[in-house]
Amino acid sequence: MKILVSNDDGIHATGIRTLVESLAMDHEVYVSAPDRERSATGHALTLHKPIRVDEIDFGLPNVTAYSVSGTPSDCVKIALNAVLDIRPDVVVSGINHGPNLGADVLYSGTVSAALEGMINGVPSIAVSLVNGYEKMADFGPGATFIREYLPKLLAAGIPERTILNVNIPAVGLSDMSGIRVTDLGTRIYQDSFEKRMDPRGNVYYWLAGEIVETSDGPTTDVKVIRDNLVSITPVTSDMTNYAALETHKPLLEVTGSILPVK
Amino acid sequence: MKILVSNDDGIHATGIRTLVESLAMDHEVYVSAPDRERSATGHALTLHKPIRVDEIDFGLPNVTAYSVSGTPSDCVKIALNAVLDIRPDVVVSGINHGPNLGADVLYSGTVSAALEGMINGVPSIAVSLVNGYEKMADFGPGATFIREYLPKLLAAGIPERTILNVNIPAVGLSDMSGIRVTDLGTRIYQDSFEKRMDPRGNVYYWLAGEIVETSDGPTTDVKVIRDNLVSITPVTSDMTNYAALETHKPLLEVTGSILPVK
Repeated sequence: MKILVSNDDGIHATGIRTLVESLAMDHEVYVSAPDRERSATGHALTLHKPIRVDEIDFGLPNVTAYSVSGTPSDCVKIALNAVLDIRPDVVVSGINHGPNLGADVLYSGTVSAALEGMINGVPSIAVSLVNGYEKMADFGPGATFIREYLPKLLAAGIPERTILNVNIPAVGLSDMSGIRVTDLGTRIYQDSFEKRMDPRGNVYYWLAGEIVETSDGPTTDVKVIRDNLVSITPVTSDMTNYAALETHKPLLEVTGSILPVK
Repeated sequence: MKILVSNDDGIHATGIRTLVESLAMDHEVYVSAPDRERSATGHALTLHKPIRVDEIDFGLPNVTAYSVSGTPSDCVKIALNAVLDIRPDVVVSGINHGPNLGADVLYSGTVSAALEGMINGVPSIAVSLVNGYEKMADFGPGATFIREYLPKLLAAGIPERTILNVNIPAVGLSDMSGIRVTDLGTRIYQDSFEKRMDPRGNVYYWLAGEIVETSDGPTTDVKVIRDNLVSITPVTSDMTNYAALETHKPLLEVTGSILPVK
């Protein structure tokens, strides 16, 4: 297969390197990833600045790699539309350093790179290691799992307007308890901003924040990962709340005194 | 009411000023918006840099305004968690210069500011003017519409984990044909990157892109806006594809040769 790999931790991160080393054993791998860390960038695009693309030596046969001065979405978009002269069979984004569970998905550059692949017509998955963000985590078992699982996953077919968001527990392969298809749980962060004063007397803030509560049913990603299961969530780019369409239509379509019509 | 207003075009944009002027006629308005344009930022957060917040004079009674060196999501998060000593009744993000229809929602800073309000427990809406991005559009009718409609909208109640994404046609109030609750259509962009050479012989790219196709059923935002209807789409932060959970569970939960278990 031809595989395009991206991430949001940057092209020099251990997670992407371990993944690429594993995939390149069996496949032709193309890397288009940010030149530096771009976590929590959401689905951002670079519109107001030019984007640089530099081919770099990844040190592996079968691998062609580009370092991009943009967001994860930029990296995938520019690879598919301007840089690559091949069409990949799949986009794999990751392996992210740390989980992308529940509402993390909204902020995740890793997920956004996969969504960009899907929007451009290529089956796409996002992969994260649930390792508590340690830089020195072992991405090896996760990378092996993805190499083995990828053909089955593509054979299963990915639903329309959807990517698969994979979270892998940070344990050895023999300690992973299985695979579960899940829905997104909720993790509630207590946001806090540290207020500081600079040497010239001006105030500035640092965003901090910690998880204070996870409320999750038995079928959520948040729950199954605790049991050392691999979590696979189908994540759609169609954010319409279809249930609310029914319930709220009459309530919201009140023109009444507002518009002079209908 | 106490209303928190944000946007992604920046605190000096005409769209937010017209909205604030309209809302301040009846309500106590707080503004927390980016110090400069932050379009297509998606749901990004600023984690690796400090954030500056400067109170500025908006020139209106009833209005307290903060210029923030961050993304739209930062603006709402920091207002609710660090800057405001009141709790707003609603977050209104906009009025955006240009539409946020279909898949635009994924990239939209305007929508992300509203999602951030909702995640922080405040009913939230995003408002965009479908004006073809002209800088000199008349935001007056849209601002009046929102002032009139807002109480009804809050009375109707916004579903859980959901914001309302409002797109308003760029016509006078008497030419708006009504209000429709819609689902997100699709607009397909033909992405193109302009490749250029800098004076030192290095290549760089500009992202361009135009809409080449809109495929949309009669109930989509893309469709109703063409008939000069106001489009209201309930947009959820839960991106789980629930239909795919059913169909793909057996296909994807194949541990088989991959994991030694279950």
